[in-house]
Amino acid sequence: MTKILVAFTFVGAVIALVFAALTAKKVMKFSEGTEKMKKIAASIRTGANAYLKRQYTIVSIFFGCMFVILCAMAAFKLLTWFVPFAFITGGFFSGLSGFVGMTIATRANSRTANACRDGLNKGLRCAFSAGSVMGFTVVGLGLLDISVWFFLLNFVFKLPIEEVTSAMLTFSMGASSMALFARVGGGIYTKAADVGADLVGKVEAGIPEDDPRNPAVIADNVGDNVGDVAGMGADLYESYVGSVISSSALGVVAFSTVQAVDGIRAVAIPMAMAAIGIIASIIGSFLVRTSEHAEQKALLKALGRGTNFSAILIAVVTFPLVWFVLGREYIGIYFSILSGLVAGVLIGRATEYFTSDTYKPTRNLAAMSKTGSATIVIGGVGLGMLSTAIPIIVVAICIMAAYGFAGGFGDTANAPNLGLYGIAIAAVGMLSTLGITLATDAYGPVADNAGGIAQMAGLEEDVRERTDALDSLGNTTAATGKGFAIGSAALTALALIASYVKKIPDELIDIRLMNPTVLVGLFIGACLPFVFAALTMNSVGRAAQSVVVEVRRQFKEIKGIMAGTTDPDYAKCVGLCTKASLKEMVMPTLIAIATPIVVGLVLGCNGVIGMLAGSTATGFLLAIFMSNSGGAWDNAKKYIENGNFGGKGSEAHKAAVVGDTVGDPFKDTSGPSINILIKLLSVVSIVFAGLIIKFHIF
Amino acid sequence: MTKILVAFTFVGAVIALVFAALTAKKVMKFSEGTEKMKKIAASIRTGANAYLKRQYTIVSIFFGCMFVILCAMAAFKLLTWFVPFAFITGGFFSGLSGFVGMTIATRANSRTANACRDGLNKGLRCAFSAGSVMGFTVVGLGLLDISVWFFLLNFVFKLPIEEVTSAMLTFSMGASSMALFARVGGGIYTKAADVGADLVGKVEAGIPEDDPRNPAVIADNVGDNVGDVAGMGADLYESYVGSVISSSALGVVAFSTVQAVDGIRAVAIPMAMAAIGIIASIIGSFLVRTSEHAEQKALLKALGRGTNFSAILIAVVTFPLVWFVLGREYIGIYFSILSGLVAGVLIGRATEYFTSDTYKPTRNLAAMSKTGSATIVIGGVGLGMLSTAIPIIVVAICIMAAYGFAGGFGDTANAPNLGLYGIAIAAVGMLSTLGITLATDAYGPVADNAGGIAQMAGLEEDVRERTDALDSLGNTTAATGKGFAIGSAALTALALIASYVKKIPDELIDIRLMNPTVLVGLFIGACLPFVFAALTMNSVGRAAQSVVVEVRRQFKEIKGIMAGTTDPDYAKCVGLCTKASLKEMVMPTLIAIATPIVVGLVLGCNGVIGMLAGSTATGFLLAIFMSNSGGAWDNAKKYIENGNFGGKGSEAHKAAVVGDTVGDPFKDTSGPSINILIKLLSVVSIVFAGLIIKFHIF
Repeated sequence: MTKILVAFTFVGAVIALVFAALTAKKVMKFSEGTEKMKKIAASIRTGANAYLKRQYTIVSIFFGCMFVILCAMAAFKLLTWFVPFAFITGGFFSGLSGFVGMTIATRANSRTANACRDGLNKGLRCAFSAGSVMGFTVVGLGLLDISVWFFLLNFVFKLPIEEVTSAMLTFSMGASSMALFARVGGGIYTKAADVGADLVGKVEAGIPEDDPRNPAVIADNVGDNVGDVAGMGADLYESYVGSVISSSALGVVAFSTVQAVDGIRAVAIPMAMAAIGIIASIIGSFLVRTSEHAEQKALLKALGRGTNFSAILIAVVTFPLVWFVLGREYIGIYFSILSGLVAGVLIGRATEYFTSDTYKPTRNLAAMSKTGSATIVIGGVGLGMLSTAIPIIVVAICIMAAYGFAGGFGDTANAPNLGLYGIAIAAVGMLSTLGITLATDAYGPVADNAGGIAQMAGLEEDVRERTDALDSLGNTTAATGKGFAIGSAALTALALIASYVKKIPDELIDIRLMNPTVLVGLFIGACLPFVFAALTMNSVGRAAQSVVVEVRRQFKEIKGIMAGTTDPDYAKCVGLCTKASLKEMVMPTLIAIATPIVVGLVLGCNGVIGMLAGSTATGFLLAIFMSNSGGAWDNAKKYIENGNFGGKGSEAHKAAVVGDTVGDPFKDTSGPSINILIKLLSVVSIVFAGLIIKFHIF
Repeated sequence: MTKILVAFTFVGAVIALVFAALTAKKVMKFSEGTEKMKKIAASIRTGANAYLKRQYTIVSIFFGCMFVILCAMAAFKLLTWFVPFAFITGGFFSGLSGFVGMTIATRANSRTANACRDGLNKGLRCAFSAGSVMGFTVVGLGLLDISVWFFLLNFVFKLPIEEVTSAMLTFSMGASSMALFARVGGGIYTKAADVGADLVGKVEAGIPEDDPRNPAVIADNVGDNVGDVAGMGADLYESYVGSVISSSALGVVAFSTVQAVDGIRAVAIPMAMAAIGIIASIIGSFLVRTSEHAEQKALLKALGRGTNFSAILIAVVTFPLVWFVLGREYIGIYFSILSGLVAGVLIGRATEYFTSDTYKPTRNLAAMSKTGSATIVIGGVGLGMLSTAIPIIVVAICIMAAYGFAGGFGDTANAPNLGLYGIAIAAVGMLSTLGITLATDAYGPVADNAGGIAQMAGLEEDVRERTDALDSLGNTTAATGKGFAIGSAALTALALIASYVKKIPDELIDIRLMNPTVLVGLFIGACLPFVFAALTMNSVGRAAQSVVVEVRRQFKEIKGIMAGTTDPDYAKCVGLCTKASLKEMVMPTLIAIATPIVVGLVLGCNGVIGMLAGSTATGFLLAIFMSNSGGAWDNAKKYIENGNFGGKGSEAHKAAVVGDTVGDPFKDTSGPSINILIKLLSVVSIVFAGLIIKFHIF
């Protein structure tokens, strides 16, 4: 049975990749448009590729060093020899996911702009197909990596199942490290370029967004691709793989004492579920199409139809899976999965409520712009902080439900392990629709870029209107996607913490809250997301200021930019952003990797567990706060631009632009990086557990 | 011996109150100045008194209801009958502290302004004396309440010592409830008036701060008194009393199994220390004086001299106290106290570094105003978040040291209790200099008000310069004071959590982090400070907007305001702020009280403990983040006003004003309320523990 499930998983992965390839072919068939559009798209592509190349160079130095360290640890028998290699493949595939996504996105942008000349529906199809390529590449590569490693370790090397899942956790560490580099680097790039371009172009020179006279305009569009596409691809690859592997690892523990069920089946369940999710997502993606003259609501409905159908299909098919694989006695685990699926939908809804301008919070926020930028900033911070309440309650109920359904409150000694497995597999449930949700998410930056190209190439007004409709919708789907990413990150992090606890010998464990090492760990852990957010925001600030200086210089020194007779030096700004963001990317990531080791060496395992719990809790909160504040500011600005409170150019609009600019690093740099951070802290702790068990002060 | 110590404590309390009364007499001897100054001061006083009267009316309804509830619980034997009465006295004295402080502050403001006409030193003496009245009233009343209750319960009713400390914890709940009302209500008042006055006066009408033509100017000055004085007095009363009582309670537990030391001695130590602190503070306060023509550094030095001397004196005298009372074997506890004292100083220093414009962070922040309000807002948020790192590390080391020195890592079964006692008493060490630190802190709003009166009464330019020098210094001491309040709050909250754990029967306790109720409690607890901060910020926003509307109306409808020929209707704004802030004050406080009960009923005791740990960790972080961001924005603005980056009226200055306005509710409403919140959650949990033990779902 297990062999069948593993084979099914492998087949699912292949199907996803084939579907991605076919969709890519479909995208490439769209016409690229006019010569000017081709030229602009080519510069964006060149800039994006140049960035990724340099990013991968730096990252590979890091991976090389880590490889050596892990090999050294293996030599001292603190790890198995599979670990360094698993680490490398995780990083490689995570990077590859981002690269493939970006490659297609930088080819689909001009095609989407051109398709919008024919109509909205065609534009949506092109952009959504590009998003699908990315979505299915991520899940396909993720599942391929998992199934191949599992096959090798279990069937070829015939390792005990505990060691299999243990080694697989390390490739999660590789994926997380790569994802953090990609998210932080890309996030700094995109926001430095965006903020820099806006501050000088919009505010000082008074030219519209995406105006070809702005020297930072190409950098801004490159940023969308390296940040929102490549960064997000690597990020969600990590989430996906992390959730499957962490629940596999806990499955082994949970069923190790259950006679009736082979532990390997508990490992196979999340893998098979992921494969089911892929097939359901493919079917769902065929449902995404809209009529011409569709309003934003109809567009949202088109995307929602696809996602909802996939979710229901998964809910239906998973039931027999659990029934036949684990048996009737453990059918409660199905309801754990369902809890995760439902919680994901609810968090998405809550995010939509707080960030979409069809609801009260964002509209009230927009109204605050009437009394100036200070009040809209205060209001946005308040909105973001308040918006943490619903997701926290949803996750709280989801945790209790997933734990309880899986049998966690039972009276056997094994019950808590089953409960923790329930929490872990709820995360897989939440992420099972990733193929399609990521497609709806990744299409946003493609539409954004298409709008930029339409503006720069001087296409007709109605083309720009269509791309704007697509883009505005992208803001909401992006916020929903972030809700998913954060919600699943919290559950996955808890599962990883549980895996960590299982790795530590019982006699070293005292994780009662009144143990001072746990408390101190908790405080330090709680602080980490704050420090991390601060570092990344300050990086954006510094990088943006260097862009501002350069753009001002070009306006001053290069004659004829404003008249449109001379092209500005786009490449200079692209190079500047690349250099600045890569420089700024290193420190936050190194801190994320070093802290659990340092805390472990000083406070021991219990301190580490406290730290992980603390960082998961505040990380979750801070990520939601920052994403939702940012999203609401962005949409409040758009709401004003649609003619409310005086519309474009009014005092209210100026105040709203300040809010939006503050929100940029909130929602696109710091917020989304935090959910990678909390998982990276956990996996680093797991990988270095052997070291910490041997050496620690307290 | 214990009797002597209790008597000594009582005497210390009386000395503090006598010293406060004498100092008040000294303040009253200063001249009130011109008729115009008298008139202005009278309106401020009237407004402040009217506010307090209405606040106390509302609060007494709440106290009445709680009294009935507590009596009902006592009738069902869930509590002893002393509890309802202890609750009332705690609230009463907390309120009284605020009232006395405000009474003297509203009399010292015009006197300080007038004294500044003669010279800076005289002005400092007057303002500092007023601060001292408040400081010594707070510690005097706190210690009086503690020593009288202790005397009654222990010597008159002869209750077992466990029940004595248990009943005393409830008056901490009374004090915390009152403090939260006062801080939240006063904080909303002061910032609604401030923001409202600035937005219309400074930004729209272009008149300077404290201009008599601004209809909200009296409300703004009333706000300083009801928020920064009355609110802070109630707040620090609560901190002071809370730290002494929580360490007493843990002292009983720690020494209950120690044959050689009577438990009552462990209770007497923190009380006696507090009395020593009073005497040391009085001596220290005589050292605060400065030469004429002193610069800000010299002023800061004058205040620092007093505080440092007091701290050293306490450190010296406490050694023999611990040695003789607890014996040589437990001298480690002295070093726990010392850890707290040192940690307090370090947190204060760190706060100073991040918020004073003599250091790099605030100067860099000021520089960010050159690229507009968005960058200075982003920079300030980053600065505040980053500034959490040092205090967290200091508190972490302090916890480990205090726990370790007290013997927590020993190998007896009792060792952890000793360790927790060490943490609790470290908080007492940190707050032992409260008499003088509060004096340096409370003098700020007096100076601020003096400046307002000088401006409104049209005094000479150099008087305003002197009050500005005093005020600017007040910003830094206020930030330092907040650092102390937050640091001690974290330690006290931990001590209260430990007390809570001791109240729960062992068989119900499972506070391992992997227990899902603990985890879920942790998540919910971590969320509370975010929600609380959001609610209070939104309240400020709403109240400020109503002020804006009213001020605009007056400018429009009352002819001759701008020409200075007609007085605006000050009372209308005062009344508006009073009404709005009292209305907004209720909900956040009720949530703070209801949440631990609801969480307890659903998740049980372990969930409550998780919740308390979570709220303490994020509350500490959020309070520091918000206070420091706010302080840095304020001082960055002042730095620009001193002539940097273009000075007053420049674009950079306008951007800095936006930052400052955003920071207002951060640093004066939400931030400082959070440290009361985390303790109130703990004491409410303790008081309702009996209920939760009987009724809970999980």
